[in-house]
Amino acid sequence: MAAAFLSTPAMAQDWRLVIHGGAGTIARDRMTPERDAEIRAALTQALEAGSAVLADGGSALDAVEATIHVLEDDPNFNAGRGAVFTAEGRNELDASIMDGRDRRAGAVAGVTATRHPISLARAVMDHSPHVMMASEGANLFSREQGLEQVDPSWFRTDERWEQLQRWLARDRADASDLSGADYKYGTVGAVAIDMEGNLAAGTSTGGTTGKLYGRVGDSPIIGAGTYADNRACAVSATGAGEFYIREGVAHEICARIRFLGETPQQAADFVQTETLALGGDGGVIVVGADGSWAWSFNTAGMYRGMAAADSAPQVAIYGDE
Amino acid sequence: MAAAFLSTPAMAQDWRLVIHGGAGTIARDRMTPERDAEIRAALTQALEAGSAVLADGGSALDAVEATIHVLEDDPNFNAGRGAVFTAEGRNELDASIMDGRDRRAGAVAGVTATRHPISLARAVMDHSPHVMMASEGANLFSREQGLEQVDPSWFRTDERWEQLQRWLARDRADASDLSGADYKYGTVGAVAIDMEGNLAAGTSTGGTTGKLYGRVGDSPIIGAGTYADNRACAVSATGAGEFYIREGVAHEICARIRFLGETPQQAADFVQTETLALGGDGGVIVVGADGSWAWSFNTAGMYRGMAAADSAPQVAIYGDE
Repeated sequence: MAAAFLSTPAMAQDWRLVIHGGAGTIARDRMTPERDAEIRAALTQALEAGSAVLADGGSALDAVEATIHVLEDDPNFNAGRGAVFTAEGRNELDASIMDGRDRRAGAVAGVTATRHPISLARAVMDHSPHVMMASEGANLFSREQGLEQVDPSWFRTDERWEQLQRWLARDRADASDLSGADYKYGTVGAVAIDMEGNLAAGTSTGGTTGKLYGRVGDSPIIGAGTYADNRACAVSATGAGEFYIREGVAHEICARIRFLGETPQQAADFVQTETLALGGDGGVIVVGADGSWAWSFNTAGMYRGMAAADSAPQVAIYGDE
Repeated sequence: MAAAFLSTPAMAQDWRLVIHGGAGTIARDRMTPERDAEIRAALTQALEAGSAVLADGGSALDAVEATIHVLEDDPNFNAGRGAVFTAEGRNELDASIMDGRDRRAGAVAGVTATRHPISLARAVMDHSPHVMMASEGANLFSREQGLEQVDPSWFRTDERWEQLQRWLARDRADASDLSGADYKYGTVGAVAIDMEGNLAAGTSTGGTTGKLYGRVGDSPIIGAGTYADNRACAVSATGAGEFYIREGVAHEICARIRFLGETPQQAADFVQTETLALGGDGGVIVVGADGSWAWSFNTAGMYRGMAAADSAPQVAIYGDE
């Protein structure tokens, strides 16, 4: 596939939406039937929110935002309500969004009072000359933009608080139970193609339990956790963020599709393998400019779902389904 | 050139160092002879610092750090001492560094008290599990790591302070004199290949005059302002940061070299053109895995220099030299 200089023209296209709610050590023997059902219901609700936008002829960008709203509000995921706590016992949230039509993008890191960080990322994209804002400056912009503000207690769940207490009390010599889904993962994301053939991607996260030093992971980094380009694909990632930044996972998947002519599945699998070789596991979701799609993960499981104009919606949790 | 899965083995190689001190509306009629000479002397001094490391068999990574130390300390450039001011009258500094051997990387955004932000980026890479730290957390890590702390007044120059005052008092209807080198550019960077054939890249900046909202530009974003990969090239960028993030400039140049077999000059020129089409001007420096190199800019000038084992050092300012 030759590199096209500008975006390919929009065309009539069946819509598609792919979502994730985090990858990690998600195994059947760690899950209760109730939790399993809750997660599937939440993923289904998120798919329905985005599908409604797309089926109505709405944009991929609006669908991604609507989908992530549901996941941010759901305490089962590490984004918005239910986010993990920093070492200081705070919720510091990161998010990014990108429009494949013109590669406009917005991102925020370390925000603490906006109910929907994905909408703050979108406001950065739509209503500022900037792509990325951090910390108190981003909080200020959020208030100025009139986005819904919440008390920090909105984000708090007892389960995440107890995770932090275990993390703080952990035996550092035995970290075996401290990696994986409970402490690191649970980021949410969505990628979509709309009826006009336009792509969009978004990602939202609370980061990692016990994070220190204003750590910024891959979720708010355009090219690492999120990328969308109508010439190639839309990607959202969830995993060991530091390795995803070093690989440039989302941008690299788009580059392989654009320059090597790989399918979304081929590109996603290759980049996942390469990132694992650097040391980082996790997962990605991809939708291509032709509506083809993929998910790829090298963890035990990934919360995930797909809905499309031409097929029944599906949700899945474990690696073997 | 086929995609290699792992880094190509290091081999005996002539070393090379390429640097920039910012791109922008740098024209002969805006420059005094004294300033012209000062800039050339500073670029030469920076080249000498990095060349000494490389000629002695040192690593590209050490050379990049040593080079950027000189540029951060020199008040002629918008990095470290001489950084531009935020709207609140502060100096908030960003930097990143990357090692092409294993694609380890470190980055900091919005730091305020570390004399050499590039060394803080390196400390993040070398002494933390993270790639990126922001604001107060990054300041705390800097103190814990024992990096040289300075009073904020260290960074202040009268010229940059007066730029801020003009920016604050500007007639917003006539922004013609408020773009370009004075207000936006002056980021510094270095890329190098050492005698073992290893690549490294680094970038350091004060951002943009009058920046608001914790704005993060491309300089601390791995894949945008900085990337290094022994399989392809090392890149440092300076320009309209938001557009450089959206393009993923540094990662994209590496991708074109790796997947399309382009030379550093071809890849740099193409990506500069593509980024300009998005709306962003600026410049990049590149050194390839075979020692080939390029600079490419679409502004009137770019402060720049090159030194190598096998040729005389050169420094340049304007577009026509």
